[in-house]
Order: sequence, then C-alpha cells, then structure tokens
Amino acid sequence: MTPNPKTARVTKIPDVVVDRLPLYARCLALLHSRGQEVVSSTELAKLSRVTPAQIRKDLSYFGRFGKQGRGYNVAKLLQELWRILGLERQWRMALVGVGRIGRAILEYGGFASQGFHIAHAFDVDHSVVGQELGSVTIRHASELEQRLLKEPVDIGIVAVPALEAQTVVDILVRCGVKSILNYAPMCPRRPSDVQLRQIDPVLALQGMTFHLKNKKGPTKKH
Amino acid sequence: MTPNPKTARVTKIPDVVVDRLPLYARCLALLHSRGQEVVSSTELAKLSRVTPAQIRKDLSYFGRFGKQGRGYNVAKLLQELWRILGLERQWRMALVGVGRIGRAILEYGGFASQGFHIAHAFDVDHSVVGQELGSVTIRHASELEQRLLKEPVDIGIVAVPALEAQTVVDILVRCGVKSILNYAPMCPRRPSDVQLRQIDPVLALQGMTFHLKNKKGPTKKH
Repeated sequence: MTPNPKTARVTKIPDVVVDRLPLYARCLALLHSRGQEVVSSTELAKLSRVTPAQIRKDLSYFGRFGKQGRGYNVAKLLQELWRILGLERQWRMALVGVGRIGRAILEYGGFASQGFHIAHAFDVDHSVVGQELGSVTIRHASELEQRLLKEPVDIGIVAVPALEAQTVVDILVRCGVKSILNYAPMCPRRPSDVQLRQIDPVLALQGMTFHLKNKKGPTKKH
Repeated sequence: MTPNPKTARVTKIPDVVVDRLPLYARCLALLHSRGQEVVSSTELAKLSRVTPAQIRKDLSYFGRFGKQGRGYNVAKLLQELWRILGLERQWRMALVGVGRIGRAILEYGGFASQGFHIAHAFDVDHSVVGQELGSVTIRHASELEQRLLKEPVDIGIVAVPALEAQTVVDILVRCGVKSILNYAPMCPRRPSDVQLRQIDPVLALQGMTFHLKNKKGPTKKH
C-alpha cells in the first residue's frame, strides 16, 4: 500500500464510505477462506453489490491498494481494512434489555467471534436478573450507571421498549459511551459526538414496499 | 399537494431517498400522536437527524408539500408518505428459519401493527414444525416452494444460518418473491429485480469502530 495524504484526515471520510468497508471486508474474508489470493474490483463488486468504480473510489480514501489491471491482494487488503476499521482488537459492549431480542443477541455467537464482547447485560425484570446467559450474568438495570462508570464499555446495545429507550441512551451517554446500537423502534436524541446505528426491520420493510407497490407481480394478493 | 411531473418517473428516485421516507413517516407519526398539526423542516430535521435541506430535497421528488415558511401539515404529509410507500395496505410475508431470531420475529408485535403480516413460517427442525407461534403454524422447510406457489407472498424473511441462506433465497426467487429481508450474515446472489435488505448488527458495529478507533475516550479498555 502506498501511503496517501488523505489518511491524515480520516474524519472527513463520508459515513456511507465507512459503512461499505465492513461489507468489502466480509466479501474478502469469504474469498480468503476459499484460498483465493487476488481479486479484481469487478469480482469484488459482484460479491458486494457495489459498482467497481465505487469500490475503487471508496478504497482510494485510504491509500492506493492493488495495481492497475492486476487486482487486489486479498489477504493484504483484508488486513488493511481490518486495521482501518479497528477490528484487530476487542471491543467491550453493554446490553440493556434482555427480552426476546436481547436474549437472541446474548446467545448469538457472531459478535464475540468478530471481536465484540458483551461485558454486561441489564434488565428491569427481576425474574431474569441473576441469570447467566452467554458469557454474562444479567444485572438489574438500576445498576447500569454505577457499573459502567466503574467498568466502562465502548459500545451500548439498546434492546428495551421504545418508551424506555431515551432514558437508557441518556445514561449510556453520561457513562461516556460513544457508540450505540439501537434496536428500539425510535430515534433517540444524543450529542453529536455519539454515533448511533439503528437496527430496524420495519424501516427496512417500509423502504422495500415503495418498490413493490410500483411493480406488478404475480405474488401480490390484496 | 401540487402534482409534480417527477412523480411520473418514480423508478428514478435514488434508493437513499426512498430509505429516508419511512424515517420521516415515523417522526411524523410521533408528532401526530402528540396532537401536533404543523411541523417545520427544521423540527423534522432534529427528530430524524437529517438536515432540513435534505428533507426538503427528498420530499421535492414527490411533489410540493407545505408552503414556504409555514411548515408541513403533519397529518397530510404523513398520509402522503404512507401512500407513496404503499403502507396503507397489508403485505404478506413468509419467514424461513425459526431459530432464536426467527422466534423473536414471530413474537414481535411491531410487524403486524405496521401492515406486515407473517402468513407462513418454515423450519427444518422437526421439533418446532407444527408449533403455533404468533399467528402461524410452523411448517417444514421442504414445503416452502410448493406452499408459496399456491399462496404467494410479497416479502420473504430469511433467518437461517449463513450456509443455508443462498438456497432459501433461490427458492424465494423461484416463487416470485421480489423483496427479501435477510438476517443471515452473508450477501446472497439474486436477480437485479429482487431487492434485498440486510439486517446485520455486526456490519453496523464494524462501521462504528472506525470512528471509535479515531477518538480518544475514557471508556476504552484494552
């Protein structure tokens, strides 16, 4: 990789570009696991559903990868993306809300294997408090602030009902959490230096019905 | 609303614009439930975390809403967005995979209340086949194709392990499904007229660590 002066001002990189990097990394990891050594931007484009030009443009923010006409070295680009994204290290997370979704999150193996460690879990329901699930013991939500001030985390996962989500976000922010993954179907207020990603299947569905509505297909049944 | 010639070529509207409309609709629904009648683009921007200029530009694709300096009529704009997004009707969905995530999806009340009806659910596990969960009886996955050809759906939800997801997507596509919500952590191949939205918390986390890595905060613990 040839160093690029642009890497000095990483904060200027558009969010949409940053958001595509994990997708490229996932596709490269797939190729790597298959033993593939080199990939063209066209092939990577097919896998990631992003145009080859967009891929080249996105990667150019971080330096010069690959050589014209020769494609990218899979292992090197993968390693570089992991470094850029900060994925070589462990990130500590706190889960708030251990209902249906929270439980699925605790039991899902896909976080820990990618370096995302759930260090704490909280709920208000006394019948689940004290239970061990995944790698943690569920604590009462009233301990949230005190616990996080003592044993801080990088990321908060909010899996409480919509009406309680703002209160939880406010506590996480007070505890210095700068990244929040929100499963509650609402958009919480937070300071501008706190990033929040919404996991919201209903919003995703509502974005698709626009296109469904404008198509005529045999699958529609009113 | 003043008709806009642009509405004639709805297919040209960028996906990113369409994807923001459900968010505006959700914010407007919140204001409507509070009895608010008029909203400025500045207020809507605060709620939705999109700039006022972006909101005005997004809405301009669909016509002229509101009057300069007077803001938008909440109820009218909400109704119009629902119409544009095709949310006044019921959409039929099939869920494939009733593991932890699939179970949470079946038991979640937020789909049906927004017009998304789970008409079928399938799994390969004989111990869950025959169970009634939410509003459906779980069927064996071997019946998937036959059932969907007889009783078609608009949307398929894929909640199977990554290795099985491509097979499921292929069957859904053969059954005429044009919209897929994918919870499997992989990016399935599909024809270009089939839309797919990925619900992928790990990708969302990986997009946030980029920013975390480039900040120094008291919450980091290596």
